[in-house]
Amino acid sequence: MNLFIDRLITKMKEKDSRICVGLDPHIDQIPEYLMLEAGAREANNQTKYLEAAAHAVKDFNKVIIENIKPFSAVVKPQLAFYEQLGLPGLKAFKETVKFARESGLMVIVDGKRNDIGSSAKGYYNAYLNKENDSNKPALGFVKADALTINPYLGFEGVEPFLENEEAGIFGLLRTSNPGAEKIQNLMMASGKRFYEELALMFEKWGEDYCGEMGYSNLGAVVGATCPEELAELRKLMPRTFFLIPGYGAQGGGADDVVAGFDSNGCGGIVNSARSIIFAYRKELYKDKYKEKEFGLAAAEAAEKMQIDINQALEKAGVING
Amino acid sequence: MNLFIDRLITKMKEKDSRICVGLDPHIDQIPEYLMLEAGAREANNQTKYLEAAAHAVKDFNKVIIENIKPFSAVVKPQLAFYEQLGLPGLKAFKETVKFARESGLMVIVDGKRNDIGSSAKGYYNAYLNKENDSNKPALGFVKADALTINPYLGFEGVEPFLENEEAGIFGLLRTSNPGAEKIQNLMMASGKRFYEELALMFEKWGEDYCGEMGYSNLGAVVGATCPEELAELRKLMPRTFFLIPGYGAQGGGADDVVAGFDSNGCGGIVNSARSIIFAYRKELYKDKYKEKEFGLAAAEAAEKMQIDINQALEKAGVING
Repeated sequence: MNLFIDRLITKMKEKDSRICVGLDPHIDQIPEYLMLEAGAREANNQTKYLEAAAHAVKDFNKVIIENIKPFSAVVKPQLAFYEQLGLPGLKAFKETVKFARESGLMVIVDGKRNDIGSSAKGYYNAYLNKENDSNKPALGFVKADALTINPYLGFEGVEPFLENEEAGIFGLLRTSNPGAEKIQNLMMASGKRFYEELALMFEKWGEDYCGEMGYSNLGAVVGATCPEELAELRKLMPRTFFLIPGYGAQGGGADDVVAGFDSNGCGGIVNSARSIIFAYRKELYKDKYKEKEFGLAAAEAAEKMQIDINQALEKAGVING
Repeated sequence: MNLFIDRLITKMKEKDSRICVGLDPHIDQIPEYLMLEAGAREANNQTKYLEAAAHAVKDFNKVIIENIKPFSAVVKPQLAFYEQLGLPGLKAFKETVKFARESGLMVIVDGKRNDIGSSAKGYYNAYLNKENDSNKPALGFVKADALTINPYLGFEGVEPFLENEEAGIFGLLRTSNPGAEKIQNLMMASGKRFYEELALMFEKWGEDYCGEMGYSNLGAVVGATCPEELAELRKLMPRTFFLIPGYGAQGGGADDVVAGFDSNGCGGIVNSARSIIFAYRKELYKDKYKEKEFGLAAAEAAEKMQIDINQALEKAGVING
């Protein structure tokens, strides 16, 4: 039960939730009062501005985490949004990861990292490293539960990330963006699409990293925006757990993601970021909630997503309501 | 002449150098006296250890930069080695980039970043952002000249990185690791290899970003360990500049990289990390230089690599000695 994937599935069952909340703090969508309180509007140079904006981001994330935790087992901070805020942003990222885990949530760091040999090991050390039981202090940046990676370099760029059985990875397979198919769906000499060839590799690579529930610590990212591929991949990859982005703002709906789950309603987790964390700005919620109630709007949006997906699975006869 | 690629080619010509020095500070190969001076050996917890190790890394990099700058126009810090040292490591990275640029070197950040839409923009902001001429302070982490990226997400994951004409990117195309061919050399229905399909896309994607010297701001990473592919790609991609890793420790030699250059001896830059920065530990240099002279060993190794590559190009009749 120490395996990442078993912990993930157990926690999702406890909460009866198949959603993941993306912590993608677009700086121009953070509530204005938080930016004002942090001093971002009076900052007259980059150093001060980044400090203030990162402070607002950290405060924002904490409120989101407190509010969505009844409805979600997992959060997924997207590193790019923190890196663009420099060192203060990376500090806010570290504090966010810590706060989320202390709040009982699991954390998938969305970094899409990739490299080989000692460089891959460096990224592993940064995000997924084991506690050190020797006297030598361990390397590390944050302690996350999982990291997204890019598999373009082959197994040599994947294996170093699997060293700690308590941590998992999700490799990009079929991404949710409109132009992805121009590369990922290229037709191979074998008669398969490129992502299909890669899918078979994922299954094989994950073989030695399987948990008690039949899934492996090597998951795959498959977009909600391509439900046909999702259905096909679910069959092709029985031991690979899916992280499914593209729900909400990117266009995927509850009925689209059903195909990503197995006959027990397991095997996938659906991510949404903007539609939840910035729900207070949406037509649906903006008359109901004031800016300072952005956490309540996020909670309602998260609960709605949790229920919508569960109901879609019930309707499809996959789970019992 | 403001285009990244024109600046790069000009600077390389000025120094008559086709090498790039990889700043990959493997923590267990940093000279022991630097670790001792920084207090890494007496650190009894992770926070203190990372602070001390990052301090040693920064000191190490400064000495390397001072010593190799007569022989190289470019350094390439590999982000993984800094991320694994947490916030102190990221601070050392930022200081390294600044110091290298102040020393007149160009900096390619090796981050292999990749994402789409606003997340890709976030990474762009972090590493390649323009100076802001409005009153609003700009987002940013470091000011680099170029960034390596992973093109698996398609043009939507490439285009956001090309916004600043003064900055460039190098997309992974055919990497130098042994297992890379299992993905990158897959045979397509078109009769081409996967990397060949991608190569044609790179050429097209770079079309609107070409400089005065015929090359574009979108370069490609092609390993020195596959000289046949290198030769083929040089013909297939006349406007794409190559960043060629895998020289030295990974097995590529001067004769192997000749194929990556055009008939004017332009079109590529060859990276080596360990063989230069840790030259003081190598059989060839360790009797000649003491540990504290690691900078002199690096200078000699860099000069040797500069000369070896130029001589191989002369021998091949590409440039005049």
